[in-house]
Amino acid sequence: MNIEMVANTLEKLRNQNPLVHNITNVVVTNFTANGLLALGASPVMAYAKEEVADMAKIAGALVLNIGTLTEENVEAMIIAGKSANDHGVPVIFDPVGAGATSYRTMTSKKILNEVNISVLRGNAAEIANVIGDNWAIKGVDAGEGNGDIVSLAQKAANQLNTVIVITGKDDVVTDGKTTYIVQNGHPLLTKVTGAGCLLSSCLGAFSAVEKDLILASIAALTSYGVAAEIAASRKGEEGPGSFQIEFLNQLSSVTAEDLIQYGSIDKINH
Amino acid sequence: MNIEMVANTLEKLRNQNPLVHNITNVVVTNFTANGLLALGASPVMAYAKEEVADMAKIAGALVLNIGTLTEENVEAMIIAGKSANDHGVPVIFDPVGAGATSYRTMTSKKILNEVNISVLRGNAAEIANVIGDNWAIKGVDAGEGNGDIVSLAQKAANQLNTVIVITGKDDVVTDGKTTYIVQNGHPLLTKVTGAGCLLSSCLGAFSAVEKDLILASIAALTSYGVAAEIAASRKGEEGPGSFQIEFLNQLSSVTAEDLIQYGSIDKINH
Amino acid sequence: MNIEMVANTLEKLRNQNPLVHNITNVVVTNFTANGLLALGASPVMAYAKEEVADMAKIAGALVLNIGTLTEENVEAMIIAGKSANDHGVPVIFDPVGAGATSYRTMTSKKILNEVNISVLRGNAAEIANVIGDNWAIKGVDAGEGNGDIVSLAQKAANQLNTVIVITGKDDVVTDGKTTYIVQNGHPLLTKVTGAGCLLSSCLGAFSAVEKDLILASIAALTSYGVAAEIAASRKGEEGPGSFQIEFLNQLSSVTAEDLIQYGSIDKINH
Repeated sequence: MNIEMVANTLEKLRNQNPLVHNITNVVVTNFTANGLLALGASPVMAYAKEEVADMAKIAGALVLNIGTLTEENVEAMIIAGKSANDHGVPVIFDPVGAGATSYRTMTSKKILNEVNISVLRGNAAEIANVIGDNWAIKGVDAGEGNGDIVSLAQKAANQLNTVIVITGKDDVVTDGKTTYIVQNGHPLLTKVTGAGCLLSSCLGAFSAVEKDLILASIAALTSYGVAAEIAASRKGEEGPGSFQIEFLNQLSSVTAEDLIQYGSIDKINH
Repeated sequence: MNIEMVANTLEKLRNQNPLVHNITNVVVTNFTANGLLALGASPVMAYAKEEVADMAKIAGALVLNIGTLTEENVEAMIIAGKSANDHGVPVIFDPVGAGATSYRTMTSKKILNEVNISVLRGNAAEIANVIGDNWAIKGVDAGEGNGDIVSLAQKAANQLNTVIVITGKDDVVTDGKTTYIVQNGHPLLTKVTGAGCLLSSCLGAFSAVEKDLILASIAALTSYGVAAEIAASRKGEEGPGSFQIEFLNQLSSVTAEDLIQYGSIDKINH
Repeated sequence: MNIEMVANTLEKLRNQNPLVHNITNVVVTNFTANGLLALGASPVMAYAKEEVADMAKIAGALVLNIGTLTEENVEAMIIAGKSANDHGVPVIFDPVGAGATSYRTMTSKKILNEVNISVLRGNAAEIANVIGDNWAIKGVDAGEGNGDIVSLAQKAANQLNTVIVITGKDDVVTDGKTTYIVQNGHPLLTKVTGAGCLLSSCLGAFSAVEKDLILASIAALTSYGVAAEIAASRKGEEGPGSFQIEFLNQLSSVTAEDLIQYGSIDKINH
C-alpha cells in the first residue's frame, strides 16, 4: 500500500457516491447524514424491521451503531446485518459505550455473534470490553486505560476474525496480520459529539467502493483526519461550534492531493 | 396570482407565527425545528399516540414525514391526521423514500387512504412511486428518471385529489388544473440533509396562514428558494457546513422585497 | 452567596468534567450533547430500560426531558430516576410542553410522584401547569400569561419540595425560602430550538459538581446567559444560525472572569 492508493480511494468514493445505510443513534443522525453527504456518499437511515432487509441489500455498505440502542433497534440491526451478509454488502459495527453498561456489552457480543462484521470500530475501551478485556470507560467516551493499543487491536482482530479500527490519539487498523497506524486527526474532534460515529459511517462509505478493507479503512481515517486538521487550522481557535461546521466544509473539499501531502500512515513491523 | 400576493403571504406568516405540528424523522428534527423558528413559525414535535390528536387540533398545520418510519410512528401519524382533518387543520405529507422499499411505498398509500392530505410534497421518484408509476430512486434521494415532471404532478394531483409539490431542479405546484413552476433554489440544498423535509414543514407553516394552497405552496417554495440563493451567494464557496448555517440565517432575514426582486414563478398554460 | 462562588462553580465543572446522563427528546439530542461537551461536561444518552438504571448510577447527574415523550421513554425515565435517587445522583426534570396536552401534564405529575426531583426547570406556563395552575401555553413555547413569576416559583417549590428554575426574560431560582433572579441571557436563545432543554442539561452538569442546588442553578443560569450575551454581541446580527454556532463556541470559552464581570444576580427579599 502507498499513499497514492489511499488518495485514489477517496476519488473513487466521490465518483461512485455510494449509498450507505445507517442504523445509528438519535444523537448523531443529522451530523452523520451531513458528514456523509459532504464526503460524497449518499446516506440513508432506515430502522423499521419491516424494511431494513430491503434497504441493506441495495446499499453499498451497512453501518450499525448502538449509541442509543433499544430492543427494537437491535432486532432491526440483526435483520439488516443478515441481509447485508447475504448480499455481499460490507457491515461496519460501532459498539458505542460497550463496557459502560452490561446491556451494551452483551448486545455488542450478540450482534457480533449473529452478523458477520467487516470492520469493527471503537475506542480502546469499547474494543477491549467487546472481547472481554477490562478497560475503564466513562459513559461513551474512552477511559484512561493505558494498555498497548496495537496488541489489543490485533488480539481483537484474530479473535473476531474481522478488521479492527481503534481510534484515539493515534488510530490503529489491523486484520490481525497487517497493521497500520494513522496519525492524522485533531483533539477538537473530541469536542464534537458523534465524531466517532460519523467516522464509522465514513468507514462504511469507503468500504462500499474498495474491497480491500485495510485500504478502505486507512483511506477513511486519513481523509477524516486530514479534513479535521485543515478545519482546525482554519477555525479551531473560534471554538468547537465553528470547528464542527468547518469540518463539514473540509470533508467536502479535502482532495486526493491533500491526502498525499498530509497523510501520516505507518506500517507496523511484527 | 402575482408576486405581491406571494410576498404578502410571507409577511402574514411572520405576523401570525403559526404553530406547526411535525411528526417527522429522527435525522432532521433539529434542523426542521430551527428552520421553522428562523422562518417565523413555532414548531412542535409530538409523536405519542396518546397526545397527537390533541396537539394536531391546536396546530395551524400538521406535517407528516416518513423518513425513519416505524409502525408506532405511522399509527400516530394517522391518529394525528384524522384529528387534523376533523378540525380543519391542513395536513402536509412528505413520503420520504417511497419506492426505495416496498414498506415505504405501502405506508405512503396507507396514509393517503386514511388521511385527507392538503399538500403532498416529494421528489419526482417519490411522487411517481406513490401513484404506482415506476421511477428510479436511490435511497431517499431522487433517482435519475427523466419523465415529464409537470405531467407527473398533474396526474398525481388528479388521482389523489390534492395539491402536489414536486421539488428538484425546478419545482412544480399543481392542483391538477392550475400549475406553476418555481425556479428558485440552489444545488447546495442537496448537500444539506433534510432540505426537502424542512421545505415540507415550511409548506405547513404557509398553509397555516393562507387557505389558497397553491398560493401557500408557491410562497413557501419562493421564500425557501430565495433564502437558499442568498445564502449560497454569501457562503456557498465555503462549503455545505457554512451554507447550512447561512441558510438558517437567511430563512430568518429573507424579506417580502427579496421575493419580489428574485422570485421566479411561471404559470404553465395547458 | 456571591459572584465569586458562582464563578468558582464553573471552574469546578471544567475541572471535574462530570458525566451527565440525559433521557431527552429527539429534537435536541445533538445540540444538548454538543452544548455539554462545549461547557466541559461529558454527555451520555441512554434510553433502554435494560440499561438506564446502570447508567444513571454512574452519572454525576440525570436529566429527564419529556419533549418527545413516549410510553417507553417515560418508563425508562422512572427507572433511571429511581436508580439516581437510590445512589444520591441529582435529578433534573424538564416538563417540556406541560399544559399543551393533557398527556404531557399527566406524565409530568407521574414523574414528580415517582422520582425525587432535585431541580425542576421550565417556562412559567410549564411550571404553572405542573402544579395545577392555569397558564396559557402555545405548543412547547411559553404563552403570554402575565402572572407573578416569583410567586409561582415559590409556590411550586413549596408544593413540590424541590428547587424550581423558571426561565424567561428573567430567570427565577428558588427553593421556596431563598429566591434569586438572574438577568443574563439573550432573546436570540428563543430562536434556537432546544435552548431551554440544553439549559436543563447544564443544570445537571452544575448539580453534579455542587451540592448546594441554589448555587449550582445560579451558576448554570449565569454561565449560560453570559455565554449567550457574548455570542449575540459577536454574531447575533448575522442571524439565528450563526448565533447558535457562536453560542457553542462561547459555552466552551466563557470564563470565571466573564461571570464576575457580566453576571447579573439579585436576591429577592421576602
